Amino acid sequence: MKKRIAELIRARDDFLITSHQNPDGDSIGSQIALALALERIGKKVSVINYHPIPTLYRPLPQSEKIRVSKDLERVYPVAFVLECSYIERTGLNGLEGSYIINIDHHRQNTRFGHINWVTTKAAAVGEMIYDLIELLGIELTSAMACSIYAAIITDTGSFHYSNTSAHTFDICSELVKWGVNPAWIADILYYSNQAEKIKILGEVLSSLEIDPNGKIAWLTIPEKSLHYHQPSWDETEDYVVFPQSIKGVEVSLLFKEMASNRYKVSLRSRGNIDVSEIAEKFGGGGHHNASGCLVEGDYLTVREIVLQQVKKSLKKQKLTEP
Amino acid sequence: MKKRIAELIRARDDFLITSHQNPDGDSIGSQIALALALERIGKKVSVINYHPIPTLYRPLPQSEKIRVSKDLERVYPVAFVLECSYIERTGLNGLEGSYIINIDHHRQNTRFGHINWVTTKAAAVGEMIYDLIELLGIELTSAMACSIYAAIITDTGSFHYSNTSAHTFDICSELVKWGVNPAWIADILYYSNQAEKIKILGEVLSSLEIDPNGKIAWLTIPEKSLHYHQPSWDETEDYVVFPQSIKGVEVSLLFKEMASNRYKVSLRSRGNIDVSEIAEKFGGGGHHNASGCLVEGDYLTVREIVLQQVKKSLKKQKLTEP
Repeated sequence: MKKRIAELIRARDDFLITSHQNPDGDSIGSQIALALALERIGKKVSVINYHPIPTLYRPLPQSEKIRVSKDLERVYPVAFVLECSYIERTGLNGLEGSYIINIDHHRQNTRFGHINWVTTKAAAVGEMIYDLIELLGIELTSAMACSIYAAIITDTGSFHYSNTSAHTFDICSELVKWGVNPAWIADILYYSNQAEKIKILGEVLSSLEIDPNGKIAWLTIPEKSLHYHQPSWDETEDYVVFPQSIKGVEVSLLFKEMASNRYKVSLRSRGNIDVSEIAEKFGGGGHHNASGCLVEGDYLTVREIVLQQVKKSLKKQKLTEP
Repeated sequence: MKKRIAELIRARDDFLITSHQNPDGDSIGSQIALALALERIGKKVSVINYHPIPTLYRPLPQSEKIRVSKDLERVYPVAFVLECSYIERTGLNGLEGSYIINIDHHRQNTRFGHINWVTTKAAAVGEMIYDLIELLGIELTSAMACSIYAAIITDTGSFHYSNTSAHTFDICSELVKWGVNPAWIADILYYSNQAEKIKILGEVLSSLEIDPNGKIAWLTIPEKSLHYHQPSWDETEDYVVFPQSIKGVEVSLLFKEMASNRYKVSLRSRGNIDVSEIAEKFGGGGHHNASGCLVEGDYLTVREIVLQQVKKSLKKQKLTEP
């Protein structure tokens, strides 16, 4: 599949690269790296996303390459859709006339492209882009290497997740040789918090609750707290890792009251529990071990119906375990 | 130097391996890996530390190899001293008659051994032990690989610190091929918290204070809180990373009231500020970017005198910068 994509890249000249709404480190890093690689061999490339990239990622080299639009201003002959399980996740209007190259590492990918390169073994789409660039024989630049490294460190949770492989480390070694400074990237991604974020975290941690069996833990951020502190969209997103860091916890949740009676629920899991299935029940989606959804209702009701679904998943998993 | 050590290992049969008091992931991982490697080529090995290994590291394979003692029961002909800047950090009595092999990666190392292999470029002593095992031509086992991986991930802060090199990633790739499951090790080291730890963290974060210039930030844990929650020795140690994660902060501190008017101060820094120099002023020690000391006095006085030293270091750095 990789070879077919490489041939197509060599044959064509005008490309669009897009990714999912609320882009993360993997989508942003993969898009920039692919765009720079294509430009290096003289191709014309547009990089367009539905949402602007979060503040966090803006210090990454060439991040200004990514433009924001809902409606494409013309039909692109070939469009790369990166890190999307289904094409609607792009949020873009105007992809209909394009030849779609779908590059993804999610199990749930619906094979919506004309070419579908989906491998769940890849730790990040960034890893796949590295392999593609290597196959094309394009020499890396420091900016390309930084983008791929940012994609990988984000999607492996600093090499903590089960998708981290020997190949992942091999690539990172190469990326350092091409100019990546791991501490500089970590500084941008993990040590550039606003003081406010750390203070709110203190408040939010006091809301920690754990199911009597110790397998489900959750945090809650009430609207008044979000309103008072006004953190940016992505600033409180990773708080869900704190309940997840507790021994024995298999599913962790963050209930964030976005508006009165409207909750953004973030879910994380370890191992076999598929939280994307749970989020899908409420019209959300995501990955096997990380997902999210929006649920309407008062806090007690929202919490109850979501936790019921989590308990069902835990029960189902127990039944299917050997 | 590595070659001389390899020759000595081949020539001798009876070894002691020790490390510093309050052992961390690098000392524990390096000790276990070296012990297993020596045993694999038929050597007699004792692994002895002053302090028992923290609960956190006990699930690591073969961690029970490490015995605890203050006084050595006999004179060992050859003793490896790992990860110690000076020999007194071992806390052991009875090393006097031994031929000392000093293996370390700290700049301040006093070259106290008969052989001194000190390279500040190594991300961890575990990295040096990997190189030594390779030079000896000893085949890795899964337990050896896990130990080295634990050493590296600890001393690089999950590959976030500036000591992370291409060689570090090359080694990790090899370790995965020899059986390391990165997610399993991360689970042990980072996702096995007691719920209590997360709750206290909430309380502690509310104590966050930041110097008006935004370069120094600190947290405080009062004795009554430690007393009430009774966390284990190492459980609150890493709270100091939270002030450190704030943008612009160059030095972060954690003041922990161990007893009335007795404070354990943990210091972390970014870049050029050497916090081991600051800790040394109060009879403590440590690394360039991570150190600690004990200071007596009431809270306001302790805080004042320690912050004064930090400010002096910041001023000195500013003067010496190009």
